[in-house]
Amino acid sequence: MSAELATRTREFIRETILPIEDANYGDIEAAGGDEIRVKMQQAARDAGVFAPHVGVEYGGHGLNMAERAPVFEEAGYSVFGPTALNIAAPDEGNMHLLAHLADAEQKERFLAPLARGEVRSAFAMTEPAPGAGSDPSALTTRAEKTSGGWKINGRKWFITGADGAGYFIIMARTSGEPGQQGGATMFLADADTPGITVGRHIPTTDRSMVGGHCEVTFENVVVSDAAVLGEVDRGFAGAQIRLGPARMTHVMRWLGAARRAHDVAVSHAARREGFGSRIGDLGLTQKMIADNVIDIAATRALLMEACRELDEGGRASNSTSIAKTFGAEAVGRIVDRSIQICGGLGVSSDLPLARLAAEVRPFRIYDGPSEVHRWAIAKRAVAAAT
Amino acid sequence: MSAELATRTREFIRETILPIEDANYGDIEAAGGDEIRVKMQQAARDAGVFAPHVGVEYGGHGLNMAERAPVFEEAGYSVFGPTALNIAAPDEGNMHLLAHLADAEQKERFLAPLARGEVRSAFAMTEPAPGAGSDPSALTTRAEKTSGGWKINGRKWFITGADGAGYFIIMARTSGEPGQQGGATMFLADADTPGITVGRHIPTTDRSMVGGHCEVTFENVVVSDAAVLGEVDRGFAGAQIRLGPARMTHVMRWLGAARRAHDVAVSHAARREGFGSRIGDLGLTQKMIADNVIDIAATRALLMEACRELDEGGRASNSTSIAKTFGAEAVGRIVDRSIQICGGLGVSSDLPLARLAAEVRPFRIYDGPSEVHRWAIAKRAVAAAT
Amino acid sequence: MSAELATRTREFIRETILPIEDANYGDIEAAGGDEIRVKMQQAARDAGVFAPHVGVEYGGHGLNMAERAPVFEEAGYSVFGPTALNIAAPDEGNMHLLAHLADAEQKERFLAPLARGEVRSAFAMTEPAPGAGSDPSALTTRAEKTSGGWKINGRKWFITGADGAGYFIIMARTSGEPGQQGGATMFLADADTPGITVGRHIPTTDRSMVGGHCEVTFENVVVSDAAVLGEVDRGFAGAQIRLGPARMTHVMRWLGAARRAHDVAVSHAARREGFGSRIGDLGLTQKMIADNVIDIAATRALLMEACRELDEGGRASNSTSIAKTFGAEAVGRIVDRSIQICGGLGVSSDLPLARLAAEVRPFRIYDGPSEVHRWAIAKRAVAAAT
Amino acid sequence: MSAELATRTREFIRETILPIEDANYGDIEAAGGDEIRVKMQQAARDAGVFAPHVGVEYGGHGLNMAERAPVFEEAGYSVFGPTALNIAAPDEGNMHLLAHLADAEQKERFLAPLARGEVRSAFAMTEPAPGAGSDPSALTTRAEKTSGGWKINGRKWFITGADGAGYFIIMARTSGEPGQQGGATMFLADADTPGITVGRHIPTTDRSMVGGHCEVTFENVVVSDAAVLGEVDRGFAGAQIRLGPARMTHVMRWLGAARRAHDVAVSHAARREGFGSRIGDLGLTQKMIADNVIDIAATRALLMEACRELDEGGRASNSTSIAKTFGAEAVGRIVDRSIQICGGLGVSSDLPLARLAAEVRPFRIYDGPSEVHRWAIAKRAVAAAT
Repeated sequence: MSAELATRTREFIRETILPIEDANYGDIEAAGGDEIRVKMQQAARDAGVFAPHVGVEYGGHGLNMAERAPVFEEAGYSVFGPTALNIAAPDEGNMHLLAHLADAEQKERFLAPLARGEVRSAFAMTEPAPGAGSDPSALTTRAEKTSGGWKINGRKWFITGADGAGYFIIMARTSGEPGQQGGATMFLADADTPGITVGRHIPTTDRSMVGGHCEVTFENVVVSDAAVLGEVDRGFAGAQIRLGPARMTHVMRWLGAARRAHDVAVSHAARREGFGSRIGDLGLTQKMIADNVIDIAATRALLMEACRELDEGGRASNSTSIAKTFGAEAVGRIVDRSIQICGGLGVSSDLPLARLAAEVRPFRIYDGPSEVHRWAIAKRAVAAAT
Repeated sequence: MSAELATRTREFIRETILPIEDANYGDIEAAGGDEIRVKMQQAARDAGVFAPHVGVEYGGHGLNMAERAPVFEEAGYSVFGPTALNIAAPDEGNMHLLAHLADAEQKERFLAPLARGEVRSAFAMTEPAPGAGSDPSALTTRAEKTSGGWKINGRKWFITGADGAGYFIIMARTSGEPGQQGGATMFLADADTPGITVGRHIPTTDRSMVGGHCEVTFENVVVSDAAVLGEVDRGFAGAQIRLGPARMTHVMRWLGAARRAHDVAVSHAARREGFGSRIGDLGLTQKMIADNVIDIAATRALLMEACRELDEGGRASNSTSIAKTFGAEAVGRIVDRSIQICGGLGVSSDLPLARLAAEVRPFRIYDGPSEVHRWAIAKRAVAAAT
Repeated sequence: MSAELATRTREFIRETILPIEDANYGDIEAAGGDEIRVKMQQAARDAGVFAPHVGVEYGGHGLNMAERAPVFEEAGYSVFGPTALNIAAPDEGNMHLLAHLADAEQKERFLAPLARGEVRSAFAMTEPAPGAGSDPSALTTRAEKTSGGWKINGRKWFITGADGAGYFIIMARTSGEPGQQGGATMFLADADTPGITVGRHIPTTDRSMVGGHCEVTFENVVVSDAAVLGEVDRGFAGAQIRLGPARMTHVMRWLGAARRAHDVAVSHAARREGFGSRIGDLGLTQKMIADNVIDIAATRALLMEACRELDEGGRASNSTSIAKTFGAEAVGRIVDRSIQICGGLGVSSDLPLARLAAEVRPFRIYDGPSEVHRWAIAKRAVAAAT
Repeated sequence: MSAELATRTREFIRETILPIEDANYGDIEAAGGDEIRVKMQQAARDAGVFAPHVGVEYGGHGLNMAERAPVFEEAGYSVFGPTALNIAAPDEGNMHLLAHLADAEQKERFLAPLARGEVRSAFAMTEPAPGAGSDPSALTTRAEKTSGGWKINGRKWFITGADGAGYFIIMARTSGEPGQQGGATMFLADADTPGITVGRHIPTTDRSMVGGHCEVTFENVVVSDAAVLGEVDRGFAGAQIRLGPARMTHVMRWLGAARRAHDVAVSHAARREGFGSRIGDLGLTQKMIADNVIDIAATRALLMEACRELDEGGRASNSTSIAKTFGAEAVGRIVDRSIQICGGLGVSSDLPLARLAAEVRPFRIYDGPSEVHRWAIAKRAVAAAT
């Protein structure tokens, strides 16, 4: 079923979504933001490809991680595709988190409308220096216990999709001090809760995510005890549920984008002539094409290994770190080589390559920079040998 | 004298030009295009750093290639700097070409006002496929002999600075057929010559060059015999004069930009904390910083070798190919690592790094893609061993 | 069953084979050549790990490709391991070929004793320039039809295991001219057939294969029609059967060797101190360790993808090319980083790393150099886009 | 004069030394050790190329660092060449140290015979873990003050040239504890001083250095006050004199070896055919050849920058670290690509490439591993930005 859904997704993306992306040079806000999102999602519903990842009870197709991979990759072939299928970050990861951690009432109130695409959400974790960034233990946003609830104060930034989100999942410190492990709690809060202010969009190189990457401040934000998602003081542990799968769906989507870049480049190389030959028959171009093929295959193979481990119930910390690190770097290389293959056209807007390069660049930083993943991978290896 | 001029240029750029660049996010058209160019050039004249490369008789400082290197690098520290000093491409290369190849009248009419910054120029060589691109022998633009002059027809693109240029140096085929070596001639033509049409700006990732990278058509453009620059049918040979030095001044300028990116990143790493340490003291960051330092040093060292060879009168085909190829790739790596060091900030407009990455990316393609240079370098090596 | 066999193989290799390898610095001839082979194979039989790949009817465990992978990898952990289990090149690939292509009599006479380890074999394909090397169509060795048989003349080199082999599979041209595709036939010939001369061992950097890489000449070697393996003039097509699986078992074995190098290095890094810290806690070492872990995981993931494709009956030309190319390069990088992690000890014989580097280096060349595989991969990609 | 001496050295090496190297597969002990050294040095004297680096008063040519570079590179073209010219490590560095730091009597007794090639020397610094390795402050060998002299106790290893050396320069701790900066002193001691024992040769991958890399123990070695080289407790500072230049002469020599590998490969590529073309005309080979050319040029350019800085009296800590790190890695890449270009022959002893790979591999570790240099380079960069 997954293969068939992947094929249908492939057709839907190429026929319906890519034209919208290209007409707007991959800028979702320029394309209409939430308005185009709603339109594209309706088209996805009509095409029977909407929400492949959520349970049938929420109107989805209930695919496991391994089954998602080819579908998400096809969706990612257009940078607007994940939004159309309602599998874009951060909503897709938030749905996963809620499905595993929310109580019945929270599911009804927060997960159901999110799964149906009626609302968007944001995951408010990252903070400006010296707060929680690559190192989550630096968390400074605080939630104080009040009678019957909590009062949250703090500043966040790089909060994807914050502008226009219906609600936030807020990570706040409920015990301990910045620099200490643990002591965090996740809270669900409607966006119109008093004290929540969405500030400026931080202007980053990617343009495909509705609602931007925003600064958000929480000033005496009062929520009830029912707002706690999971357990008090166990917020980091709870967020782990989201972590591994979210890394992998990132890789799936971005791999799709890389494959599009590669296809554009190979198609160019197959048609253009130079130095008395097709460009694609020149050895130095062949080197780049082959390296792209290898990078695509290796990313996909590592991804599938990690997905199978997740589907078997494992935490897959190491294998998702490996797949994310390799994948993020491979995707960058693939797009870069694709540009190089196309020469001057490659750096122009006449082809989508330059903007794809800008779109994928942050992937080596978001969701843990390569350096942090390598550090974690090495620590595990050394610990195992000690 | 070169060292002193470099120091003065350094101060001028940091105090006067960088603020203009940063306020406009490195977009020269947004900053005012030719208007800001004129203003910045006056400031450079006032600071005594204008036109370091042209002869004293034209108001310059008469530096040779090796002397130019540190000055141009300091100018390139801001992507607007080369324009301010009147050493931006393509004008700087055109001045070099005219100084060596133009007759007295051409020098008076074309070189002198260009050197003084009163006018801009364009070098119309590159053509859309299947015309002259990386492979110049594919040249299709034709100049037919008429009595007393020539009639030029053809299409060009990626003509840097074409929009607003006062005149063009046009490469056109005067004998032979596309695919054949030789048979080209260079012509000087005022921009308002009937039949010259500047079309759209090709939207590329770089934003610092006044006048864009344009499509230009020549339709029955009539010029006199006096318009021939150098010798008839010897246009490619003539353009060689421009080639090696223009490659090296490209490296000088872009190395400056890379150095700025590195400085921004190291300054960030020296101040920010993470994982209980300064970021700049973490081994995985140290790796990136050291690799940047090595890449800067190696680019500069290769550049100086080639400059000395040019100053001694050599053609320096191989050494300029080597320095250009290594330099263009090193510059890309340096900016990319600088982004990575700065994390989320690195891909945002709060730092200049992401736009510097977009600015330098085309350098691996402009002036001969790395693949064409490698091909030429290898051919020479194999020929020497045969 | 495969997992259990892998575990048993792991124990057998570490307890029984590694000590023999290390005592002889990985040099199989120094260790006794065929004599030590026979001894180790008996030990493997006793441990129940002999011949995991051949059918139960030949005394093996009948594993398919995907099942072989973990077992072969454990065997490869010692460079003597594959010989001990009778899964070393070229015998292992030859068994695969015979199992698929030989008739009943050939199986009885050639496959059965090979599977039991009673005899060794060689695959005589590669020729000195200008003959068949990376480009098989250059094949010059000829077999002329005689009444009732064939007469073979030609020169081969780099024939692995030739010295001491009981028989040869000889690739010879039966029609067409060197440079033409097709026209080759495979022949089975006992080593003592008149006219077969095994010449010198070409001294290569690897030392673990019994029987060396030899020069072999065929001078009027007469074989009967029953010696034809597969079909006349269809030798290249027949050899394809061997090609993909042989590539993958190469990767399995060498991946085991790389893993050993990595284990040695991590163990060193976990125990040694320097600069006030364990070496394994220094960021620049962590980078190398993490890159090793990633390379091991990616090689294994690509390998498994290709194995599954082969097990499903596919030719898997592209996926085995990809896995071989990536794997051979990854293995080289892993061993090289392991050396670097261990410093001066790494380049000494006090650790096995330097000889492992020498052992794995040819893998980027044997079984098709990386460049030939990349060329084939790119050709397929461009053809698909045409 | 340097250019002329380089040319003469080039001829001498190719005519006289390379044949000796190749006949002995680059193994100096197999070639006769000190006996062949004496013979080759006499030939060098006869050819007027002996000792280019030492002062005229010691029978040398008195070249400064920049002048040495091309001569040493030509000498390094054969791995026996530096020994022939008496410019091999560690003698060459020791001469440099003695010329700068020794008093008149020490010069007479130790420098003069060393410069004339009558004796060899060793620099006894490196210790087994947990002693002084990459981190010199871990120095554990101790010298205790006695009346009129010192008594030295400790263990060293990887002492190049120790077996057969006439004397040692011993680094020993005269104050402070292992882990503390400073407190070291250098002592000159004849090899036959009681208590000095040269142990086993550590079997490393390089084979060109007379006297091996040995374990050495000092047991109650008594020397007089006149044995102190430089100042007491200032041994590390004194050794700095040797450090920068020794790094650069290492690069010079190894660059010569890399150039030979490259020449062998290009010559192969220019003559061999494959896939209907010369190998050297295939794009994927051209890539490797061009990368070799670029690596050679960049190494040489960085080397010359550092040499000029040294010749102007600078410490050149950073520029020699950069040139050493880049050069050691580039040399490794060059030899590795050269192997790949030559295919199966490349990993055989029929070409010198495989042994050159083994010969140059330790260079990334000796004289400070790349990681330690990168760490130092980054520390300087971050400190400058703080």
